[in-house]
Amino acid sequence: MKPQLSIFKVGGKVVENERSLADIIAALVRFPQAHIIVHGGGNIASELMQKMGIHPQFVEGRRITDAASLEVAIMVYAGLINKQIVAAYNAASMSKSALGLCGADLNIVRSTRRSPEPIDFGFVGDITAINTSQLCRLLEQEITPICCAITATASGQLLNTNADTVASSLAVALADYYAVELVYLFEHSGVLADVNDAHSTIASIDYASFMALVKQGVIKEGMIPKLENAFNAIQHNVTSVVIAHHEDVALYKERGTTIECKLM
Amino acid sequence: MKPQLSIFKVGGKVVENERSLADIIAALVRFPQAHIIVHGGGNIASELMQKMGIHPQFVEGRRITDAASLEVAIMVYAGLINKQIVAAYNAASMSKSALGLCGADLNIVRSTRRSPEPIDFGFVGDITAINTSQLCRLLEQEITPICCAITATASGQLLNTNADTVASSLAVALADYYAVELVYLFEHSGVLADVNDAHSTIASIDYASFMALVKQGVIKEGMIPKLENAFNAIQHNVTSVVIAHHEDVALYKERGTTIECKLM
Repeated sequence: MKPQLSIFKVGGKVVENERSLADIIAALVRFPQAHIIVHGGGNIASELMQKMGIHPQFVEGRRITDAASLEVAIMVYAGLINKQIVAAYNAASMSKSALGLCGADLNIVRSTRRSPEPIDFGFVGDITAINTSQLCRLLEQEITPICCAITATASGQLLNTNADTVASSLAVALADYYAVELVYLFEHSGVLADVNDAHSTIASIDYASFMALVKQGVIKEGMIPKLENAFNAIQHNVTSVVIAHHEDVALYKERGTTIECKLM
Repeated sequence: MKPQLSIFKVGGKVVENERSLADIIAALVRFPQAHIIVHGGGNIASELMQKMGIHPQFVEGRRITDAASLEVAIMVYAGLINKQIVAAYNAASMSKSALGLCGADLNIVRSTRRSPEPIDFGFVGDITAINTSQLCRLLEQEITPICCAITATASGQLLNTNADTVASSLAVALADYYAVELVYLFEHSGVLADVNDAHSTIASIDYASFMALVKQGVIKEGMIPKLENAFNAIQHNVTSVVIAHHEDVALYKERGTTIECKLM
């Protein structure tokens, strides 16, 4: 039987709030099984860009990562946020040791720059490989990897990458070695049937109902790629995938939305 | 016999120049023995502070790390510079794998905040412990630690620390397990007898001549703490300590200044 591994993706809105970040680290430190934390960045990078006088570029409503924005992303995600999480985790942990990683470290997450056609998103990476042997070795040593969503190409170009996709890709790659559960923790209680009702959490969802809810406009914007990542994981041997509120670390299975494996 | 370990401290002026940074990484990747790289940050943090409208604070001519400056230091040293070095190293390396670390990662370098008396330098750390067992384990796995000079207290407060001191402290702590050589690589050819003559490198220096040269005003400013760190290492079982030009990675023993162990 494969050993258990939990991968917790902590959303940007949780990370940007000092109190909610402290609370979730305190909860995750107490999580007894082997785990990996993947974190987003929230508005901290945008705020820094504003302070620096860098104006975000958009094409067709989607943000472009130019060279200046990439530097800010590296500083904020791989530097400020990552190291604050690592320091807080290690200060509270009695057993496991946290190690902050970007994709370049130990070649953990390799990517290629996204094709400039049809839209050139700039320094944005699509994941091509996960270094499972290094990750397994860290986990065997009671190390908790804390991963940000900066990845690197084979030639050493750092790239900005979607943190939900990093979490999903790690889960899929490590499913060969572990019984992996993937937990997306964010500011809502799960997938909501009514975005205006925080208590309308859908207990479980399959791909057909997801598509139907997208068509109805119930699931929209950032929830669509998040759910695509969640379905990708459950359809590639990840044992369980849950989307839940960040305050429900101890109860995510009961309270969040479980992604069902049933294909269309 | 203890295995060999080389610790290379790469100075801030080398790091802040894209070309010299690329050159030194290319040289260090080819270094066959186990090694650790410790890097400074140069003016990159000051430039970012300027862009953000943060004014550096000084007391008696010495810089204070306030909360805003600390955030910038973490972003620049642990984020931008550290990850660029890691990515470039791993892109060029055929055997070893680079892993970027701040002191908080795996509790590698623990510190306490410097006493506010007589001068409160703010969020500045004095090193209290090195996690040698984690570092030895990484080195045994053919991993090259790339260390920045951000450290952490037991309660998880990140602190800005002198990179020369980080290098010296790592060297002293690891001297119990390795035959350690410590190499400070920077923009001069070594300790100069005449600061206006780049070719006046002193081949070797003991503590008595160091003190005499300080008294004469030949050795001054940043060179004084650098040499204090160098003498601290050689007086605590580090096998060899050299201060050399960053372009002399292959020839530092012949061209740089060797620190002599002879006590006063």
